[in-house]
Amino acid sequence: MLADKFGPARKIELTSINDSRGMLVVGEVETHVPFTINRFFIVAGVPAGVSRGIHAHKKCHQFLVCVRGSVIARIDNGKSSKEMLLSNPNFGLYMPPMTWGTQYSYSNDAVLLVFASHAYDQEDYIHDYDEFLNQLGAQF
Amino acid sequence: MLADKFGPARKIELTSINDSRGMLVVGEVETHVPFTINRFFIVAGVPAGVSRGIHAHKKCHQFLVCVRGSVIARIDNGKSSKEMLLSNPNFGLYMPPMTWGTQYSYSNDAVLLVFASHAYDQEDYIHDYDEFLNQLGAQF
Repeated sequence: MLADKFGPARKIELTSINDSRGMLVVGEVETHVPFTINRFFIVAGVPAGVSRGIHAHKKCHQFLVCVRGSVIARIDNGKSSKEMLLSNPNFGLYMPPMTWGTQYSYSNDAVLLVFASHAYDQEDYIHDYDEFLNQLGAQF
Repeated sequence: MLADKFGPARKIELTSINDSRGMLVVGEVETHVPFTINRFFIVAGVPAGVSRGIHAHKKCHQFLVCVRGSVIARIDNGKSSKEMLLSNPNFGLYMPPMTWGTQYSYSNDAVLLVFASHAYDQEDYIHDYDEFLNQLGAQF
């Protein structure tokens, strides 16, 4: 079971080193990011009122870091949902496969960095929430 | 020869998708980042006049993306050097091992994302420029 190996959706603290030269945040694969990184996104310039995400992945793991500004991430595993304010690059949000994810309330200056475990595959996306629940039903 | 397999230091264009929901930049390992990502850094809040980097790695490959604001990256392979303004998240700067790298003139809002091929290893860093040239001499 993937979910057992990688664990549940959770915030993971990164290593942070602040000194007179500025802020340095460091994350390592395995230590912080629980999967092999095969793709990354940078999301910025999202207008007020716009939500992004609004889908689940069948196989793809994701790891979200808000590197500037703030954004609210909502995660939903079909049984319960949770909203988290991401406003600090010191933390990453790990989202296992079959997590319905939505990001909204981007601040004007928000920059969201997302790591993904898989290359792009249209077939891996579930864009319909009822279909998401159906597929989870098959897993429960 | 590592340098032959991964190619020289260069800017690599990422995939960019801009629409009414904002800007999305996507990079994939192999397609854009020529090495396995084992570590990442986020550098921000660097005061005016401060330079960072100022070292080379013996084995570690790096890939720099300025995700917000701007920074100047100077790369030096011991034979020639080049300065590049990084001011657009659409581009990454690939730095092979044995590249002397310095980043400076960070804008107030600059956020520099760095991918690295290796976990942290103090022994992989060369902090003395003459030692860097000596080690290159052994390679030329």
